[in-house]
Amino acid sequence: MKIHGMWYSNATGRVLATLCEKEIDFELIPVDIMKGDQKKPEFLAIQPFGQIPVLEDGDFKIYESRACMRYICDKFPDKGTKLYGATPKDRALVEQWLEVESQECTGPMLDLVNQVLFGPLFHGKAPDEATVKALTEKLGKVLDVYEAQLSKTKYLAGDFISLADIAHLPVGSYYFNIANQHDLLKTRKYVTGWWQDISGRPAWKKIVEMATPDIEAWKKAMK
Amino acid sequence: MKIHGMWYSNATGRVLATLCEKEIDFELIPVDIMKGDQKKPEFLAIQPFGQIPVLEDGDFKIYESRACMRYICDKFPDKGTKLYGATPKDRALVEQWLEVESQECTGPMLDLVNQVLFGPLFHGKAPDEATVKALTEKLGKVLDVYEAQLSKTKYLAGDFISLADIAHLPVGSYYFNIANQHDLLKTRKYVTGWWQDISGRPAWKKIVEMATPDIEAWKKAMK
Repeated sequence: MKIHGMWYSNATGRVLATLCEKEIDFELIPVDIMKGDQKKPEFLAIQPFGQIPVLEDGDFKIYESRACMRYICDKFPDKGTKLYGATPKDRALVEQWLEVESQECTGPMLDLVNQVLFGPLFHGKAPDEATVKALTEKLGKVLDVYEAQLSKTKYLAGDFISLADIAHLPVGSYYFNIANQHDLLKTRKYVTGWWQDISGRPAWKKIVEMATPDIEAWKKAMK
Repeated sequence: MKIHGMWYSNATGRVLATLCEKEIDFELIPVDIMKGDQKKPEFLAIQPFGQIPVLEDGDFKIYESRACMRYICDKFPDKGTKLYGATPKDRALVEQWLEVESQECTGPMLDLVNQVLFGPLFHGKAPDEATVKALTEKLGKVLDVYEAQLSKTKYLAGDFISLADIAHLPVGSYYFNIANQHDLLKTRKYVTGWWQDISGRPAWKKIVEMATPDIEAWKKAMK
């Protein structure tokens, strides 16, 4: 498969994490969003909203990162790590928590990453304290629900790892690991254990390793 | 199946539309969000984010409206209207357009409904013209992508109706039909045809009919 995107992009990262967990060979075709490549006519022809990534499988192309993740699992149900639940009920719980990731968690976490990491790095702009406080409280309430769930099951959808867990890896890595924001983990031992587990998996470590030169390059370009 | 929610709720409406298209008997258990029932401990025990709907199938409970929609289709693939695609590729396209509905279309459309319908009705607040203009432009760009797609295929994911189409019904009904906002349709003949098709289906008409007393009641309560 081919994936049009960038290592450092959160949406691309969700699909890359899925490809690595499923042990699918892929080629990354760079779409440099720092240069606006995603708004060029040739890219808009395959992704009319001008967003990365696009997954290419022969003559079939698909976009929207979570749709790409589901497609990889549907096409290769038995390859690599099973990530989509074995029964309709397990699958429904994967879908429920994947929606929670998308609708509840990633929004405030990405806003925080913009405040504490990208703002200072890209725009020389200090974080706005009141905004950070409000977003941290909002994210904390979401992670309270995670803590309650993870005290009962090893992963979000049950005792099996799934798309719902790995969908948190890209934004979570920026927030917890690269921006070193650990306050919300200190009081939530089950979330901490879960985060250490999923972010320490060999598949994700491989992505982090491959993304590092890209991340170093944009850090340098922005200074 | 039981569904905890309200007729007039957009998220509840997406699941109700799915149940009706799939010809599944259900009982609606009202959770009056006007009175804050969704934040009471007994409801938070089944939906920790305090949001409707929750779908109940025997001793199994699931929340997040689009996860509920997928579960109904996975459980009853051959009952009523097939809404989830017959192959992994068709299914991927359903997922892609369901993500587009969720990530691109429903946001600005619901913000517009709040401006032109709920604001005046609930808070006696006139729409803010600049906000309405900006939102209308944003939604128009999304519907331009829809127009291009619907000029090629009868429905969003292909020549078959799917979850991706019917997910637009609740918010679309508020915007196009109840608030009577037709400007964005006038210049988009394929979107117009698609909207007339999906909103005219017997399954959706049944929901509209059942929702009408509820909608009249809250209109009255708000005056």
